[in-house]
Amino acid sequence: MLETLVHRIKEVTLKDPILIEGLPGVGHVGKLVADHMVEELHAEKIIEIYSPHFPPQVMVKEDGTIRQVRNEIYAYHGKENEPDLLILIGDYQSATNEGHYELAGIFLDIAESFSAKRIYALGGYGTGQFVDKPTVMGAATRIELVEEMKQQEVVFHENEPGGGIIGVSGLLLGLGALRGIDAVCLMGVTSGYLVDPKAAQEVLRILSRILGIEVSMHALEERAKEMEKIIGKLQEMERAQAPYEAGGDEDLRYIG
Amino acid sequence: MLETLVHRIKEVTLKDPILIEGLPGVGHVGKLVADHMVEELHAEKIIEIYSPHFPPQVMVKEDGTIRQVRNEIYAYHGKENEPDLLILIGDYQSATNEGHYELAGIFLDIAESFSAKRIYALGGYGTGQFVDKPTVMGAATRIELVEEMKQQEVVFHENEPGGGIIGVSGLLLGLGALRGIDAVCLMGVTSGYLVDPKAAQEVLRILSRILGIEVSMHALEERAKEMEKIIGKLQEMERAQAPYEAGGDEDLRYIG
Amino acid sequence: MLETLVHRIKEVTLKDPILIEGLPGVGHVGKLVADHMVEELHAEKIIEIYSPHFPPQVMVKEDGTIRQVRNEIYAYHGKENEPDLLILIGDYQSATNEGHYELAGIFLDIAESFSAKRIYALGGYGTGQFVDKPTVMGAATRIELVEEMKQQEVVFHENEPGGGIIGVSGLLLGLGALRGIDAVCLMGVTSGYLVDPKAAQEVLRILSRILGIEVSMHALEERAKEMEKIIGKLQEMERAQAPYEAGGDEDLRYIG
Amino acid sequence: MLETLVHRIKEVTLKDPILIEGLPGVGHVGKLVADHMVEELHAEKIIEIYSPHFPPQVMVKEDGTIRQVRNEIYAYHGKENEPDLLILIGDYQSATNEGHYELAGIFLDIAESFSAKRIYALGGYGTGQFVDKPTVMGAATRIELVEEMKQQEVVFHENEPGGGIIGVSGLLLGLGALRGIDAVCLMGVTSGYLVDPKAAQEVLRILSRILGIEVSMHALEERAKEMEKIIGKLQEMERAQAPYEAGGDEDLRYIG
Repeated sequence: MLETLVHRIKEVTLKDPILIEGLPGVGHVGKLVADHMVEELHAEKIIEIYSPHFPPQVMVKEDGTIRQVRNEIYAYHGKENEPDLLILIGDYQSATNEGHYELAGIFLDIAESFSAKRIYALGGYGTGQFVDKPTVMGAATRIELVEEMKQQEVVFHENEPGGGIIGVSGLLLGLGALRGIDAVCLMGVTSGYLVDPKAAQEVLRILSRILGIEVSMHALEERAKEMEKIIGKLQEMERAQAPYEAGGDEDLRYIG
Repeated sequence: MLETLVHRIKEVTLKDPILIEGLPGVGHVGKLVADHMVEELHAEKIIEIYSPHFPPQVMVKEDGTIRQVRNEIYAYHGKENEPDLLILIGDYQSATNEGHYELAGIFLDIAESFSAKRIYALGGYGTGQFVDKPTVMGAATRIELVEEMKQQEVVFHENEPGGGIIGVSGLLLGLGALRGIDAVCLMGVTSGYLVDPKAAQEVLRILSRILGIEVSMHALEERAKEMEKIIGKLQEMERAQAPYEAGGDEDLRYIG
Repeated sequence: MLETLVHRIKEVTLKDPILIEGLPGVGHVGKLVADHMVEELHAEKIIEIYSPHFPPQVMVKEDGTIRQVRNEIYAYHGKENEPDLLILIGDYQSATNEGHYELAGIFLDIAESFSAKRIYALGGYGTGQFVDKPTVMGAATRIELVEEMKQQEVVFHENEPGGGIIGVSGLLLGLGALRGIDAVCLMGVTSGYLVDPKAAQEVLRILSRILGIEVSMHALEERAKEMEKIIGKLQEMERAQAPYEAGGDEDLRYIG
Repeated sequence: MLETLVHRIKEVTLKDPILIEGLPGVGHVGKLVADHMVEELHAEKIIEIYSPHFPPQVMVKEDGTIRQVRNEIYAYHGKENEPDLLILIGDYQSATNEGHYELAGIFLDIAESFSAKRIYALGGYGTGQFVDKPTVMGAATRIELVEEMKQQEVVFHENEPGGGIIGVSGLLLGLGALRGIDAVCLMGVTSGYLVDPKAAQEVLRILSRILGIEVSMHALEERAKEMEKIIGKLQEMERAQAPYEAGGDEDLRYIG
C-alpha cells in the first residue's frame, strides 16, 4: 500500500450536508463527541480511508478479530428540519506533516463531492490546568462565522489559541478557506489529560443546538470511560515495547 | 537504489502454501521461531527483498564477508500430509511508517502470487514482567479463525493486546483482511527483553501442531543464545557510535 | 495538498529588484527586520506560498478568523533612486531537510522570474551569551561581495560562523551561487533567545544604508515585543499539548 | 532542488580506476585519510554531488565566501605502475535512510561508468575505549578479498564489527556486491571521539601499500587538528541554536 486509499462502501445522496470532524486530539474531546454522535444518531458508514500516513497498526477487537487502523466517514440523513451530516471519525491522525496535508486535502475533496456547505472541526484546547467552568472556544474561516458563533455561546479570545490550531482541524479550516469552504473549529477547553467528558459535553451541547439536532448525552460519560481504558492500554503497550525500535533514522549511526 | 527490490532467486511451484512470517520484534520470538523452522526444515531460499526502508547497513559474517540487510522468503515442500510453506524472515522490519505499508503490500502480493491460503504472523507480546507460564496469545482476521485457534490452546483476552498489533505482523492481518486473505497472529507472551526462547518454544509447539509439521526443538535454545549474542553486539555498537547521528525519523515500535 | 503551491496574487513589474529574505530563525532577527520593512515601506503582497513542508497549522488572528501558515512575497517599488525590492517573509521555514531544498529552489525560481540582481538573506548569529556591542556578521557568494560588505561595517571573522549557515538563508546563498546569483547573508549577532530587537536594529541600519532606502526604526522595539508575545504563546501551547505527538521527523535548527 | 544533482566538472579518462571512499564517520578516520590523499596526490576534482538528502546548509570559508555542502569525486592519474584512482570525499553523508540508499546507488553508477574495478571504503571502528595499538579491521564482498587483505595486516575478527557496517561504506559493499563489484571496507580501530589521526595513519599506511602509491604522512596530524577545530565549531553552533527547531514532525501536536 503506497497511497492513501479511499474506499467508498455505500453510495448515498445528501442535501447540503454539514461535515463534522472528530479525530483524536487534545483531551480526545473531538473524538468523543463525534463517536458519540455516530452512535446516538445511528449514522451509517459510507467511506473508509486507509493511509500509509497512519501508524502501521491494527486494532484488536473484543472478540479477538482485528481491523486495520483507519478514518471513517458516516452519513446521517436529517429528520424533518434537521440538516444532513457527514461525520469524520477515526483511530489516528496522520503521523507526518506531509500526511496531514494530503489527508486534509482528501477530506475536503470528499466534502466538496457531497457539496458540503459547512465544516465543524471539533477539538480540545488544552490549558494544562484544572478547568473550572466548561467553555467552548472558537475559530472560523470568516468574520461572519465568528459573529454567528458568538451568538451561540462560543468564546473568542484575542489571539487565542495563541499557538494556532495544529493538525487536521487546523488544516480543514486553513485549506478549506483557500477553497472557499466555510469552516468553524469548536474547541472544548480542557486540562488536556486523557479523555475529558465534561469538555465534550459542552461542545456537544452547543453543537447540537447550532445544528438543531438533539443528541442524548446519557451515554457520553460511560463512553469516555471506555475510551480512557483503551487509550490507557495503548500507552501502556507503547511503554512495554519501548526497547524495540525499528531503527528510525533518529538512530542512524554510520561507519565510513 | 530508490525502490524496494524483489529478487526472485528460484522459481518453485507450491500447492496452497501457508505463509509464516517471523521478522524481528518483541523478544525476537517470531524471528527465532521462523529462523529455526527454516533451518530444521531445510527450507529453500527463493526470494530476497532489498529496500531503502531498511537501515543502510550490511551484516558482517563470520568469515569477514558481508551481505546487505534484507528480508528473505524460503519455500518448504511439505512431505506426505504436510502443507507447503513460505517462510518470511529477515534482519529488520521497515524503519518508517510508509515503508511498513509498502513492504506489507509486497509480502501480500507475493503470498497471492503463490495463492497462499493462510498467513501465520509470529511475534511476541511484551508484558515488561517476568512470565511465569508460557502462553500464546492470538488475533485473527475472522471470528471463525479465532474459534479454530482457541481449540489449539491459543489464548484470547478481551481487547488484548490493548495497544493493537504494530508493524509487519499487524499489517499482514490488517491489509490481508482487506484483500480477503485469512491471517492469524500468534504472539508468545514474553517479558520482552532480548531473545526469549521459552516464548518461542511455546509458539513453535502450537504452530507445528496446527500445521501438522513436526519440528525438532533441540537446537532452539542454542539458537536463541547465538541470536542474543549478535543482538547484544548490535546494541553495543550503536551505543559506541552514538555521536554519529544522521538526522531522524520516527520512533517505531512493533510486535512481530 | 501534495505539493508546494505558489499562489500569485498580483502581477507586478519590477526593475532589477533585490530580494530580501527574513524568515523565522535565531533571535527572530531576520523576521523582525523583514516584517518591519514590509510594514514601514507599505510593500504590497504579490505571492503566497503554501507547502506540505510547513507545519500542519493555522494561525488564529485577533478577530477569531484563521489563516493557513505560509510564506509570502511582497513587492516594493523604489522611489527616485531607491531600488525595487522583493521581501520574503512568513510564519515558518520548512520542517524537513528535503523541504528546505525544495522551497529554496522555488524562492530562487521566483527571484529569477523577476530578474532579481541580488539577494540579502537576513538572520541572527546566536552566541548563547549576552551581546555587548551590536554587530552584523556576513557571508557572501563571491569575494567581491565580501569586500563590498566590509565597507559597510559588516564583520567577517575567519571561518565564522563555524557551523556554516543552516536553513533557508544558507540555501539561498549556496544554491544561489550554483545558479550564478549574487547573495549576501547578514546576521545580527544575538544571544539567540526569543526576539532580539537590538540585533535587528543593527541589521536594519546597515541594510537600509546599503540599499539607500530609509526605514524608520520607531516601531521596531514595539513590534519585537508583540512578536515575543506571540512566540511565547506558541511555545506555551506546544508544551500544553506535549502529550499529543503524531510521529516524528528530524530536529532541524536553522539560521535565517 | 528536488533531486540529487550530479554535476560533472571535467571529463577524464581513467584506466580501471579504484574508488576510494572517505566520507565523515566514526573518528572521521575515512574522511581524514581521503582528504589527505586528495591533497597529497594533487588529485583533480571531476564531479560535485548536491543532494536534498544532505543537511540544508552552506559552509563558510576563511575568506567569508560560502559553498553549498556536497560530496565530491576527485581523479588521480597513477604514475608508472600506480593505479588510477577515484576519491570520494565530502561534508556529510545522507541525513535519511532512503537518501543513503539513493546516494550509494549514484556512487556505484559513477564507479561503473568509469569501469572501476574495486572499491575501498574507509572508516573507523569505534570501541568507545582508549586504543592501545593501532589496527585496521576489514570486511569485504568476497572471501578471496578477505584472504588478500589478511596478507596486508588487515585484521578480521569473527563476527566483527558485530553491529555490521552502517552508512555509505556499508552500502558500497552491500549494494556493490549485488552488482558484482569488488569492495573492501578498511576500518581504523578508534576510540571514536572527534578526529583520530593515529587510526587514520594506520589506515593510510596499509592502503598506500595495497595500492602501491606512496603518500607522505607529514601533514596528516596537522590536518587532523584543523578538522577537529571545524567539527568543534559545528557542534558548538548546533548547541547554540538548539532553541530554534523548525517544527520537525517530532514536535507535532494537534488539536482536533
